[in-house]
Amino acid sequence: MRNLKIDGRRLWDDIHDTGKIGGTAKGGVRRLTLSDEDRQVRDWFRTQCEALGCTVTVDGVGNMFALRPGKNPNLPPVAMGSHLDTQPSGGKFDGVLGVLSGLEALRTLHDNGVETEAPFMLVNWTNEEGSRFLPAVMGSGAHAGALAVAAVLAKTDRDGVTFGTALDAIGYRGTMPVGAQKFSAYFELHIEQGPYLEAEGKTIGVVTGVQGMRWFNGRCTGVDGHAGATPMHRRADALLTVARLVDRIDAIARSHGPHAVGTIGELTPAAPSINVVQGEVSFTIDLRDPNDAVLEVMEAEVRAAAAELAARNGTTIEIERIWRAPPIPFAAECVAAVREAAADSQFSTRDCISGASHDAAYMQSVCPSAMIFIPSAEGLSHNELESSSFEDCAAGAQVLLDAVLRYDARLGGR
Amino acid sequence: MRNLKIDGRRLWDDIHDTGKIGGTAKGGVRRLTLSDEDRQVRDWFRTQCEALGCTVTVDGVGNMFALRPGKNPNLPPVAMGSHLDTQPSGGKFDGVLGVLSGLEALRTLHDNGVETEAPFMLVNWTNEEGSRFLPAVMGSGAHAGALAVAAVLAKTDRDGVTFGTALDAIGYRGTMPVGAQKFSAYFELHIEQGPYLEAEGKTIGVVTGVQGMRWFNGRCTGVDGHAGATPMHRRADALLTVARLVDRIDAIARSHGPHAVGTIGELTPAAPSINVVQGEVSFTIDLRDPNDAVLEVMEAEVRAAAAELAARNGTTIEIERIWRAPPIPFAAECVAAVREAAADSQFSTRDCISGASHDAAYMQSVCPSAMIFIPSAEGLSHNELESSSFEDCAAGAQVLLDAVLRYDARLGGR
Repeated sequence: MRNLKIDGRRLWDDIHDTGKIGGTAKGGVRRLTLSDEDRQVRDWFRTQCEALGCTVTVDGVGNMFALRPGKNPNLPPVAMGSHLDTQPSGGKFDGVLGVLSGLEALRTLHDNGVETEAPFMLVNWTNEEGSRFLPAVMGSGAHAGALAVAAVLAKTDRDGVTFGTALDAIGYRGTMPVGAQKFSAYFELHIEQGPYLEAEGKTIGVVTGVQGMRWFNGRCTGVDGHAGATPMHRRADALLTVARLVDRIDAIARSHGPHAVGTIGELTPAAPSINVVQGEVSFTIDLRDPNDAVLEVMEAEVRAAAAELAARNGTTIEIERIWRAPPIPFAAECVAAVREAAADSQFSTRDCISGASHDAAYMQSVCPSAMIFIPSAEGLSHNELESSSFEDCAAGAQVLLDAVLRYDARLGGR
Repeated sequence: MRNLKIDGRRLWDDIHDTGKIGGTAKGGVRRLTLSDEDRQVRDWFRTQCEALGCTVTVDGVGNMFALRPGKNPNLPPVAMGSHLDTQPSGGKFDGVLGVLSGLEALRTLHDNGVETEAPFMLVNWTNEEGSRFLPAVMGSGAHAGALAVAAVLAKTDRDGVTFGTALDAIGYRGTMPVGAQKFSAYFELHIEQGPYLEAEGKTIGVVTGVQGMRWFNGRCTGVDGHAGATPMHRRADALLTVARLVDRIDAIARSHGPHAVGTIGELTPAAPSINVVQGEVSFTIDLRDPNDAVLEVMEAEVRAAAAELAARNGTTIEIERIWRAPPIPFAAECVAAVREAAADSQFSTRDCISGASHDAAYMQSVCPSAMIFIPSAEGLSHNELESSSFEDCAAGAQVLLDAVLRYDARLGGR
């Protein structure tokens, strides 16, 4: 079972062929979850898997499970997976690489007539991106029991269409109960979406865990004023308070380096106008670190800074935590399988902590899991210019195949 | 001609009666320029003036001129005026007070059978607010030759309706050539829209001039990044650069006190999302000071700060000046007439420099002009809660009448 070689060209062609489904003029992909483009790529995925003799099952939130039988039907499958939906202005690789590399792995097993110990499974998770229906990582979250199925089905997009209606419209509401599928382990290949691998010239990221995250909504209230007639010392400028908080959050994150990050990604004056001192500004905060204790300190520092800055400026501020995800360490045996698989092919490696969330983070709560990263050009992602090289994609798929085979061999006692 | 007393109750009733035209539930007024509400208040204004024996003429951009004859028809009229249009969520006093106080002054002259030396004139300027058609102060700007009539007529609102079409629709495109009406002098009563008079317990603001203003559009460009996967030291966060600029502009304005003000009133991330480091942010800047040399220094300091902050953060920034209005000192003889008129009634006074622009600023370029301020509760304006007291409105109207009578008396050599 050694020296199975994936076909990098076949994988590369799949990435570019499926990239035409929702393909954009700039070379990116717009394939929102449960859209007709999502239906098309799901149909293609099902056809490809069935051509390899796999059985494709769909659960009640549209997660797709392609099963390739193994020697021992009593073992839960060893799984690979990721997602085929994209951001509105997404790239060809985010999520897609993990599903298509899993497909390439299954093809390689098929072409070589390999019989594995456990059944193998390839999963396409619904709505990883969260662009059309919030929150992100929804399909795997429902599978892991973190999100209630009824709540998922009731989520609405900007047009008021529910998740359930959209799921029915593309014909992908399956009959398998959500969460019923069990796994021996789960492996996910993904682009890094960050700069480290490229900057250090490494091919494979051995992902040891996912950062913890905390999300907040904020609102600062001051007093609207005429920009010409309100002297500086009489102002209660909400935009000034929030602007200072942006700078302070940057400083707080840097003081907790090297992993900590802090971002204000939304900042919205309530009544924007060139000649109006803004009396109300809403904003978001995103804090991340691999260590929950660090996150706890960061949150406290951000809250203290916000209160101090608001008061200094005659304004008030409210900050509400809307989401908290603890740091997720991946299973040691799965991380070891990835590390050994990379060594098998003599790929250079670097240990990584994922800054983004992934389906694998939820899977770790129900079975041993790990992830593999490959370099993202310039660290770009959620961007039509997102890019990874032919060689790195092939390397990642090879490590994925070898890691699941190593894990499977252990299940068989070898 | 001394001891003519305006009727404060009649003025107050007019303010509240006309406030019903476009009146809002919160007690404000929404009377956008050239709307049907604007037509209604114009019709009312014309009827009131004609009832006093005045002749109402309309020019080619809808400015309305009510003429009350004097002893000497060869003298250009001594004028009062302001505007009857409001902000979308405006108050009852901004602009309205000046026109209705002029009307009350004409009524007082009429009721007392007073014949003035020069003809008197009351003006309702079109589109002072600039909320529906940009720029603001449009009618008086066209009258003063600062704006070309053809350009004014071609301005469009958000629905694509041109100023000319809207003017025709309400029947207020007059036949008098724009700018043809000449004046001996122009006086405008207005609410302060700022906090000084109320804070210092003064009744009358003797306005000695209007601040200079410079408006800018800005755009900062960095690199979009994943909020989780982009480490702090690899970011080019456009929002961080602009946030720091908000703080710096605040400091620059304060360093040039007491009059200088600097405001960022619009700040718009290009792709707002809680988990995206923003790669592009647009914004506006409003700088004001009574001294153009100070404004020159402030602009240079803002540009230097923007360049430094952008570079420090791996971003680039462009700042384009879109409007420049020099400081306008009012005519000494008109300011003196206001000061003496306030002293006649023993009202407490304070010299003011207007932070906002006004029709009087353009009028000063074509005839000697001045303004009178009364207190604005809490300095609020461009706000449905905008408020001034019965007593202050009456005081302002009395000073307006006495100032134009004093000016007129000098024209007659008394």
